[in-house]
Amino acid sequence: MNSNIVNNFENYKKTWVANTELPVSFTLTYSTNIFDPRNHDLISYGDSQRKIVVVDKVIYDLYSDQLINYFDTLKIQYLLHIVDSTEVNKNWENCEKILRFFEDAQILRRSEPVLAIGGGVLLDIVGFCCSIYRRGIPYIKVPTTLLAIVDASVGAKVGIDHFGKRNRLGAYFPPIAALLDKKFIKTQPRREIVNGIAEIFKLALIKENELFVLLEENYEQLLNEKFQFGAVPNRVINLAITGMIEELAPNLWEKKLDRCVDFGHSFSPLIEMNNVPQLLHGESVAIDCIFSSCISFNRGYIDFETLTRILNTAKNLGLPTFHEDFTNFDLMKLSLTDTMKHRNNNQYLPLPIEIGNYKIINDLSDDEIKNAIMVFKTL
Amino acid sequence: MNSNIVNNFENYKKTWVANTELPVSFTLTYSTNIFDPRNHDLISYGDSQRKIVVVDKVIYDLYSDQLINYFDTLKIQYLLHIVDSTEVNKNWENCEKILRFFEDAQILRRSEPVLAIGGGVLLDIVGFCCSIYRRGIPYIKVPTTLLAIVDASVGAKVGIDHFGKRNRLGAYFPPIAALLDKKFIKTQPRREIVNGIAEIFKLALIKENELFVLLEENYEQLLNEKFQFGAVPNRVINLAITGMIEELAPNLWEKKLDRCVDFGHSFSPLIEMNNVPQLLHGESVAIDCIFSSCISFNRGYIDFETLTRILNTAKNLGLPTFHEDFTNFDLMKLSLTDTMKHRNNNQYLPLPIEIGNYKIINDLSDDEIKNAIMVFKTL
Repeated sequence: MNSNIVNNFENYKKTWVANTELPVSFTLTYSTNIFDPRNHDLISYGDSQRKIVVVDKVIYDLYSDQLINYFDTLKIQYLLHIVDSTEVNKNWENCEKILRFFEDAQILRRSEPVLAIGGGVLLDIVGFCCSIYRRGIPYIKVPTTLLAIVDASVGAKVGIDHFGKRNRLGAYFPPIAALLDKKFIKTQPRREIVNGIAEIFKLALIKENELFVLLEENYEQLLNEKFQFGAVPNRVINLAITGMIEELAPNLWEKKLDRCVDFGHSFSPLIEMNNVPQLLHGESVAIDCIFSSCISFNRGYIDFETLTRILNTAKNLGLPTFHEDFTNFDLMKLSLTDTMKHRNNNQYLPLPIEIGNYKIINDLSDDEIKNAIMVFKTL
Repeated sequence: MNSNIVNNFENYKKTWVANTELPVSFTLTYSTNIFDPRNHDLISYGDSQRKIVVVDKVIYDLYSDQLINYFDTLKIQYLLHIVDSTEVNKNWENCEKILRFFEDAQILRRSEPVLAIGGGVLLDIVGFCCSIYRRGIPYIKVPTTLLAIVDASVGAKVGIDHFGKRNRLGAYFPPIAALLDKKFIKTQPRREIVNGIAEIFKLALIKENELFVLLEENYEQLLNEKFQFGAVPNRVINLAITGMIEELAPNLWEKKLDRCVDFGHSFSPLIEMNNVPQLLHGESVAIDCIFSSCISFNRGYIDFETLTRILNTAKNLGLPTFHEDFTNFDLMKLSLTDTMKHRNNNQYLPLPIEIGNYKIINDLSDDEIKNAIMVFKTL
């Protein structure tokens, strides 16, 4: 190398390092009977007298009378946009409509938080729109499904499907608050509730023995009473949210990709995609939990008694524990490879080592997948 | 209010507060002759052997031989996407093409930073695509205009125009690094260089007396030698970048909306929009600086001698100092009102109080706009 050029480089070289940090704080609060005019939580955010509301169509159909009565009784002006937020509509076209609603409303950049009322898909779409509109406007999550209460309400991940891939476009954009009203759960069909239980089951198995035992012993009450009465459902939701916050809050931007909350999400994503709409998200997660537990069993991390407890608890909670696709080696291999792309080409496979505890492995072999399939088939 | 209900609310009430922070660090580095194979800066980021490059069409037309020779000589595989990144193409359609390029390239989420090579518009579009693709992938800014070197390279703001509004969709998404090669400036037309000088002039006037004096005394050399030779242009760029970092880095997400760097951007945005393509961004900023200085003069913040120095320096730098639209009271009022929407309904008007110092006011009256127009017309 020519030393004059090196010297020239050196003369011109000047480097600045800009260091800064974005502090983030958001609250999750129980807020029972959120559309009761005596409950002012929904209108307690922002400076504006006017409220901007984006609501899921199913929720609007069920609760429009209460919603309209709420704002009318409190004499609060509001602008409403209704979104058909099924997974198939989690796309850019739907975003365009929401962004146009924001534009027409001339939302203030900082002081008019959007109220997003709906399940996980609604919260994902609206959160994404809020993240990109004018480089980000504040929003409040009001989850209306058990799954969204324990899962989507906690994280910062928002997004839409694109190029035929799930959540291909998105951001990490936490809300300023989440308001949790478990009364919504009572209007959910049983299968949707079971779908939400799957994420609680996943978290319990990998992280929280007390939560697992609560599910194991109270499955009938939880399912039949739809989380409405007594101390047990509150304790279940409390433990689930506390556990999720512990895992997600310090890693809100997923700088760490070895996450225990990814348990149940290693083989399932591709299989879930291939079985839309027969297999719900939580259902495929539950089957993945069982399959992954078979890997743990083969490695000697858990004994057969524990594997049986896991299986029986899942069954009692109404969760599916088997799907033919999980016995197809090529598909399972492909699923894991696809998942690894989300983990920067690492397996980062969380496995239970007892009820409520896990380790993350990175050396799963093809033979282990085949052996797990054999055990999985016999369960 | 029914006290039982209040009690019920209290029983259910449970609040979690999630606190976390996103640490951000990025470097700005001079890197002269960036396409010289002896300079390895461009290939020094990321783990991958393959480089993902998005380049502005004008730059590609000028530098394609050097760019291709660079990667070929270094035997580095690369994927290239060329973008026509004039302001009129700063839209979603262009994003779609870039996102499709990312998708086809199957970019790794964390370890394959995108090299964005171009002016401010290119960096804005590509940065926005990187911010939303898979919830954010790393990228490196390689600014190729004087304006982008001193302005776009420093901040975190990315975005596209939408609904006929500038930067209506976007994010705060800092690059991992910016590589500054002022050799690019020599292929810029004079008017483009003057356009970049406007932002330096703005910063000098409001914040940095030494920088103002450098511009005042060396305008001929800077313009004629296109920032290529000697110590003066380096000092000018150093001071400009250092000043910009001081202002932008602690406020990367614009939590503070009273920003001195918004000087020159209070009345100009609407007038710039109304005069595309006759009036370049920097040109309208420069005229706004003169107009705002008239307000300062009327308030007694600066004397007539200072006002004259400001005017003459702008003229010497080749900047326009007058436009008919700035004498239209209704339009000026409308412009300010529109700008206030970006400042959460505050004026936050930075005004010079001497060369290199400012204050921010929030009480500009209609009469003051009219009186400033009168002075502005006489200059």
